[in-house]
Amino acid sequence: MGAVSPARGTKEPQQERSRATRLKLLEAAVSCLAERGWSGSTVSVVAERAGVSRGAAQHHFRTREDLFTAAVEHVAEKRQGALKRVAHNLPPAGSPARTRIVVEELVGLYTGPLFRAALHLWVAASDEEQLRERVTALEARVGREAHRTAVALLDADESVPGVRETVQGLLDMARGLGLANLLTDDGGRRGRVVSQWARNIHMALRSE
Amino acid sequence: MGAVSPARGTKEPQQERSRATRLKLLEAAVSCLAERGWSGSTVSVVAERAGVSRGAAQHHFRTREDLFTAAVEHVAEKRQGALKRVAHNLPPAGSPARTRIVVEELVGLYTGPLFRAALHLWVAASDEEQLRERVTALEARVGREAHRTAVALLDADESVPGVRETVQGLLDMARGLGLANLLTDDGGRRGRVVSQWARNIHMALRSE
Repeated sequence: MGAVSPARGTKEPQQERSRATRLKLLEAAVSCLAERGWSGSTVSVVAERAGVSRGAAQHHFRTREDLFTAAVEHVAEKRQGALKRVAHNLPPAGSPARTRIVVEELVGLYTGPLFRAALHLWVAASDEEQLRERVTALEARVGREAHRTAVALLDADESVPGVRETVQGLLDMARGLGLANLLTDDGGRRGRVVSQWARNIHMALRSE
Repeated sequence: MGAVSPARGTKEPQQERSRATRLKLLEAAVSCLAERGWSGSTVSVVAERAGVSRGAAQHHFRTREDLFTAAVEHVAEKRQGALKRVAHNLPPAGSPARTRIVVEELVGLYTGPLFRAALHLWVAASDEEQLRERVTALEARVGREAHRTAVALLDADESVPGVRETVQGLLDMARGLGLANLLTDDGGRRGRVVSQWARNIHMALRSE
């Protein structure tokens, strides 16, 4: 590993620690939002949950809005990254088996704690002016990225009329399934809907 | 109108007034929930909005939970009643034009103030034990009724495998479109998605 100058040796672990603290705060913020809703989610509560001092938390995120929008964006990016890695193990493009797995994975994006956290943020933003603009911009970025990922994984040709809207509607359905899972475990019904709609989507994408 | 006994004459207008008060409270409760969310929605706020005394409001609805679950159920029933009346003016069963209109009308159930109010109630119920059971039961009733209406209007044959799940997925998509409309006016995109999904649904229902 050779000689490390003292300055470099001190700086890098510090940057790493700072990065690790930031990550702990982001993950704690999403689980806090999912469990306690917006009204129960403050920077202090998240700092405590992450085992970080309140001062350190405020060094990373100046406002409550900064922390929670960054948290939802971070976890959404992480989940979409995981989804893109799924691509390497998919059945051949154009096969019904591939469409089925992709529809399942896309719906999975909207049925976990991330969706629950995002939903709390959306609903709070619908009532609070200063949050609304931030969350609207965040939602547009995350939504565009989900759409791009869906098109790529489904091997869909958006130059064909109707294909873009079929994929958009699929993501809307996934969001609706997430909502149906909010109060009760809707997994059984969801599995049957996903299975049938994988067939419908496959047919719609190939029949234009 | 002939002879009316004094007792009857006093009683009926009183019942009518009581019914009118109840209706005013229910409608005010839904608009309050849609605009201010659960945390801003109390029996007092609704009573004031409806122009009714707090005592009268509490005579009709003992608790905050009673008032708001009854309100969402009342407005949902009213909207589904209106939807059923649409049935008399629909194009012939089995035609693409009919499917298109029905999909538009179903999506319309989830994009107005009622959906916004229901969403606030769902999200609050996901954090509050005592509200959760009530709202879960309400949601199950309203969901079943929406499903029955959709099957009837689409003239769908649920004895055919996959048809039930196709209709369920359509209602999930409608809910997802409602969610997408929460922060921004999503009407343009929604129109294009609905138009394409009406084609997809039509194909799925007729091809089994």
